[in-house]
Parts: sequence; structure tokens; C-alpha cells
Amino acid sequence: MAVSQSELSFARRMEGMTGNVIREILKLTQQPDVISFAGGLPSPDSFPESHIRRILEEIGGEFTSILQYATTEGYPPLREFLAAWVQGRGIEATPDQVLILTGSQQGIDLACKALLDPGDVVLVERPTYLTALQVFRMYQARAVAVPGDDEGIDPDALEKAIAEHRPKMLYAVPTFRNPSGETWSPERRRRIAQLTAAAGVVVVEDDPYGLLRYDGQPLPAVKAFDEAGNIIYLGSFSKIISPGLRVGYAVAREQLLRKLVIGKQTTDVHSSNLSQYIVNAFGRSPAFQSHLETICAQYRAKRDRMLAAMEAHFPAEARWTRPQGGLFTWVTLPETVSTTRLLERAVQQKVAFIPGTPFYTDGGGDHSMRLNFSNASFAQIDEGIARLGRTLKEALA
Amino acid sequence: MAVSQSELSFARRMEGMTGNVIREILKLTQQPDVISFAGGLPSPDSFPESHIRRILEEIGGEFTSILQYATTEGYPPLREFLAAWVQGRGIEATPDQVLILTGSQQGIDLACKALLDPGDVVLVERPTYLTALQVFRMYQARAVAVPGDDEGIDPDALEKAIAEHRPKMLYAVPTFRNPSGETWSPERRRRIAQLTAAAGVVVVEDDPYGLLRYDGQPLPAVKAFDEAGNIIYLGSFSKIISPGLRVGYAVAREQLLRKLVIGKQTTDVHSSNLSQYIVNAFGRSPAFQSHLETICAQYRAKRDRMLAAMEAHFPAEARWTRPQGGLFTWVTLPETVSTTRLLERAVQQKVAFIPGTPFYTDGGGDHSMRLNFSNASFAQIDEGIARLGRTLKEALA
Repeated sequence: MAVSQSELSFARRMEGMTGNVIREILKLTQQPDVISFAGGLPSPDSFPESHIRRILEEIGGEFTSILQYATTEGYPPLREFLAAWVQGRGIEATPDQVLILTGSQQGIDLACKALLDPGDVVLVERPTYLTALQVFRMYQARAVAVPGDDEGIDPDALEKAIAEHRPKMLYAVPTFRNPSGETWSPERRRRIAQLTAAAGVVVVEDDPYGLLRYDGQPLPAVKAFDEAGNIIYLGSFSKIISPGLRVGYAVAREQLLRKLVIGKQTTDVHSSNLSQYIVNAFGRSPAFQSHLETICAQYRAKRDRMLAAMEAHFPAEARWTRPQGGLFTWVTLPETVSTTRLLERAVQQKVAFIPGTPFYTDGGGDHSMRLNFSNASFAQIDEGIARLGRTLKEALA
Repeated sequence: MAVSQSELSFARRMEGMTGNVIREILKLTQQPDVISFAGGLPSPDSFPESHIRRILEEIGGEFTSILQYATTEGYPPLREFLAAWVQGRGIEATPDQVLILTGSQQGIDLACKALLDPGDVVLVERPTYLTALQVFRMYQARAVAVPGDDEGIDPDALEKAIAEHRPKMLYAVPTFRNPSGETWSPERRRRIAQLTAAAGVVVVEDDPYGLLRYDGQPLPAVKAFDEAGNIIYLGSFSKIISPGLRVGYAVAREQLLRKLVIGKQTTDVHSSNLSQYIVNAFGRSPAFQSHLETICAQYRAKRDRMLAAMEAHFPAEARWTRPQGGLFTWVTLPETVSTTRLLERAVQQKVAFIPGTPFYTDGGGDHSMRLNFSNASFAQIDEGIARLGRTLKEALA
């Protein structure tokens, strides 16, 4: 009578889906003593815990409505706050153009749900955010990487890719790219908005790190150049308030947003009201701006500490990016090195990173790795980079 | 240069997806003065607000980890609590067989993601939960209703449907059915578990109302008869603690649960830690049991009030179910009545319900309606049912 696992047949979209590489590595590296540069975790010191405690204490008569069902679109005061707030990124939006998400990751999923049929093409950066690649695979779409440089995707290459692949979507993290840390130039932003608009390609602009800027001037979002209404802007509070609350948001014109809302209704109905309430209250408080400045100062120092430690400990053959913001630096090694193989040795030395390959659509990048500098302490950065330097030198010897 | 909406092409799964009928009706009925029996909202009096306030005040050193990223599977103490707690429904499970969800609605979505390809068949009850039907449509699956009676799906009809349609899944709300309020008998539960196991059909047992029992003896879940590991049990805290927190859970054997976890990773990474913390703390407190008893007493009285009001005000031609639990009664009218058309007139009379048709796969049920008795006050029940009775009598005149 018993049905064995093999008798159950799963959906085709599950073929080859083995779970998120990072999250699996994170589990491995949760052993004590391992210094992990693998995740994209904010520093535990960065959470505005006392502010959140006060917000919770001061909830008044609105508690009942926080505990009740709410609209899929999200908590109205938070939608209003965000419509005004994204003006800081050059985005004009009404509250009706804002959808609150259970983390901005959900925005990638809902955009795919709204737009992609199996076999459709999504253009991506090379390298790109690995969990986005997993989402595209889940929707049986084909991710095609477009070449670029440190100013962003190359417009000529984009035009060629659009002509060749007729993509439905372009997915990118234009500001402090995950994994490589670079940022698109303003001119590139404008140009890519134009090219995609002309071709009717929807851009999913994923911007979880935009406010974590440590040097240079803030840039307008790609969405700021969206004259045609083809850009979905995704923002997140995970890196600037708390990831545990799971609050992100999408900004798009109503007709496009409506499709995301329909997708969300059948998925989780709406996001946690309590989380939305906290984010709204903290976001509107005077403390938010100084909190952002504090985090940026903290992460700037950590970035500098890591860059200095790499300078001191890494072999001469290694190169790495010096990001103006975000959470990551990207290390490129000689092509003889496989970081996938190196990871095992590194974990034996009690230090962890993410190998480059999962960020590529084509198996490339195996001689590169992503390092996170936000989560570790100064002492852990010094010690972890020293360990990693030794591991790298051994591999190159 | 401007791209018009018509130039964007959405995914095929979005065709005909116009949003959740209930949620759209809820918006209409949010005008003051409308007495709504349309939603499935718990009573605002039912929320354990003071307990939740105390839990929030007493969060100690664990606040930092609440604010950080966490595992997709869920908060370990809550998984442990649930593994023990579902024993009350006759379910044997380890914490590793529990996945925390952003509402049990997410479980329906993730089960479909794991199992359904376009064109696959899902067997359902007739009538069944309308948002589940929307999920199946979103996955381009075909929902096929299996006839039954007030003891549940008819086993012979189920065997026939399995042979004819080779379904991947059976979806059901066996306890206090949504929308009709009935409950499967123990013998039917056992038989359906056996038949589906033998055929390798995955059962999604959706049980948001199981603990809201006002009469009769508690029954084991269908999952309690799951010898083959083909049943996914979905539970929810939306109706017994708070829907605004968005916490539900799935129980399934590891290999099946793993597929749900992979689907969740790419969707929302994990559910709100703060919500999970609250549910765990309240669920483990001595207050939880007495809270459940209080809600059941409150809803029993509301159910009785509504049944009495219907007796007093409804026309002789109307029939309705007398559920032993849950949130709904189901009204059947002569076939000459269209409740879809009736709704407009009812809303003019400032009373609302859900017409029957959206709960059917085949356009049937237009002479029936679902009434919710949990959200309205006694006075609203009396007045709303009187208004609805007048509207019904006019329609039948």
C-alpha cells in the first residue's frame, strides 16, 4: 500500500532545483569558529532594536486592525510613505503604484509569475544574483547574460541580445551589484531604460542596497528614467532595518502592479501587518535618517577593513572590486583556481565564502568568489581574511 | 517611445485572472453601514491582544535573532511546538516534517508549485474554497469536482475520477468545509486516505478551521490516516490567534516538505520572525487553551444567533447548513434565483454575502450563497439577516 517517494511525480519546474546554494552553505558554516563571508546578512549591531521596542510598546488602538486581515496591496500609510520616499531615488509614484511585499525577493517571484511562460528569455547581468537565477529556473525561463563593464550592461550588447532573444524581461541590481559591487553610471541607466522601453521589455530593477552608499554621490534609480512604464522597481528594508521582519516593496504603474497584486493574493494574501506597522513607524521617525547614517558609517569601516586585510594577506595574483556601497566585494583569481574546490579547504580552515559559479548562467566564474563584509566583526574580518589569504596562496603554490 | 500596456505581454497563466472575488467584494462592502457576511474574517474581539502585548514586552536577548535572517523552514521552537501539537489531530510528525508558512494559503501555492504542470488535474470538493481554485488556475491546472454528500467526497466517485483523470492532487477542506460548513466522517477520511495513497495522488488537506468546533467530538485529520506519506496537512493560526500576523504551517514527510521549502526559498525566503515568535510564545502559554475555549463559545453563540435569525427571516424555500464548527453557513435557494444578481440588490440594502458560483469549477451553484457568522456582532447578525431575508423574499416574489 505504501507509496514510495519515487512514485510521486513532481512538476517539471522542480527538475534540478536543489535549493539555494547560499542557504545550504550558510547551514554548513553555522558551526562555531567558522568565520563566514558567505551570506548577505546585515550586522546584528545594525538593527534599530530599541526603536522597534518603543514602537511596539506604543501601539495604541490600531492593534486590533494590525491583527486582522488586511488588503493585499499593503498598509496604506506605508504605501503613502514609500511613494514619497522613493522620490529620493528620482522616482515619481503615487501610493497606488506601491505594493508591499514579504521581502523584495517576493517581487522577483511575482514579476516572473506575471510575465514569464516556459521558454521565455530573461536578460541578466554577468554575474548576477543567484537566487534570481533560481527563480527564473523555477519558471522554466531561460536566463541569458548580457556582457557589460564596471559602468553596467553594455548598451550595444543589450540591443543585440534583445534582437536575438526577444526577451520578456531584464533583471538587474544596478546599484552596488550583487555579487560584484559595481554600480551603473547615470548615462547607462538612461540608455538602458530607453532601449528596453522601445523594445517592450519589462525591467525588474532590484535595489536592496541603494541606500548603503559609503562614497560618491547618490544616483537616480533606473526607474527614474521610466517614461514608458516598463520598469518595476523593487526595494527592501532587509538591509536597512531588519531582514527578519520580511518587508520589501514594488513600485510600478497600476496596470503592471495589478498583475503582481493578483499573484500575491493567491500566494500569501498580504504581508505581516505588524512588520508593515513597524517599518512605517520607524521609517517616518526622525531616528530613521540618523540610523541610516550610522549603518553606512559602520559598513564603510568594515568595507575598508576588509579591503585593507585583503591588501595585506591576499596573493598578488588576486584582484577585487572596491564597491562604493552595498555588502559585497568580488574577488577574481587566476583561471587555474576553482573556488568551488577551494571552498572545502577554506571551510576546513574555518572560513567561508560563496564560489562564483552560481552567479553565472553558463557555468563561468569558477575562479571568482563573493565576500560579504557587513556581518563579521573587525576581528573576524582580520582573522578570516588572513585564513583565506593562506588558503589562496596554498592553492596558487 | 512610450510603451502602452497592450504592448506588454503577460504570462499565459494570467489570462482570465481578475483577482480574488471575495477580496474585491470586501472592498465594495467596506463602506460604512454595509453589514458584511461576505469575508472569512475572525471577530475583532477574538484576538488575544493583551497576551500579544505582554509577549512583545517580554522579548529578551532573542530580539536580535528575531530581526536577523532565519532559515526557510521556520523558527525551530515553533516547528517543535507544532510537531507535538498536531498529535491532537492524530498526526505523528517530527519537527523536521513541519514548515512554517506565511499563512496556510502559501501552502496551497507551494504544493502546486511542487507538483503541478500545466494541464494537470486537481480533484476538489463541490463546492470548494474559491481562492484554491484561483491558485490551480494560476498553475494552469484543471480543477475537477468530485461529488459527495454531507459526510464528504464519495469514495466511488473518487475512484472513478482517479481512473478517468489521473489527477496529481486532491485538494480538500475536510473539517468545517469552506464554503459549506460540513465535515467528513472518520470512515470517509480513512477511505480517502487509502484510495489516494494507492493511486499515488497527493492530498492537500487544508485545515484552517479544525479547532473551531462548537458541537460534537473532535475528529482525527485525514493526515492521521496517512500511511503512505502522500498527505500534506496545512494548518493556520489566522482563525485562532490572528490573520494579520500571517502564520500557517505545512506538515508532510521530509522528501515532500523539501520541495515546498525549495519553492518558499525563492518566494519569500522565510516568514516574519516576529510573527513566528509571537505564535510560538502564545501557543505554548497556558492562556492558549482557554483562549480557544473563549473563541469557540463566542462563535458558537454567533452561529446559533445567525441560524435563529435565518429561521425567523428567511423565506420557506431557503435551506442552509448547520455546521458544527468553522465560520460559514451555506444557503441554498430555488434554482430560479441567481445570487450573483441578488448581490447587487443586497448591497443596496446594505448587506453582503458571497454568491455561490466562484466556489464551483463548472459555473454551478448560482442559487447558493456563503454567509460568515464570525465577524458580525449579534446586532449586525439580527439586522443583516433581516435585510437579507427581505431581499430574498422580494427575489422569490
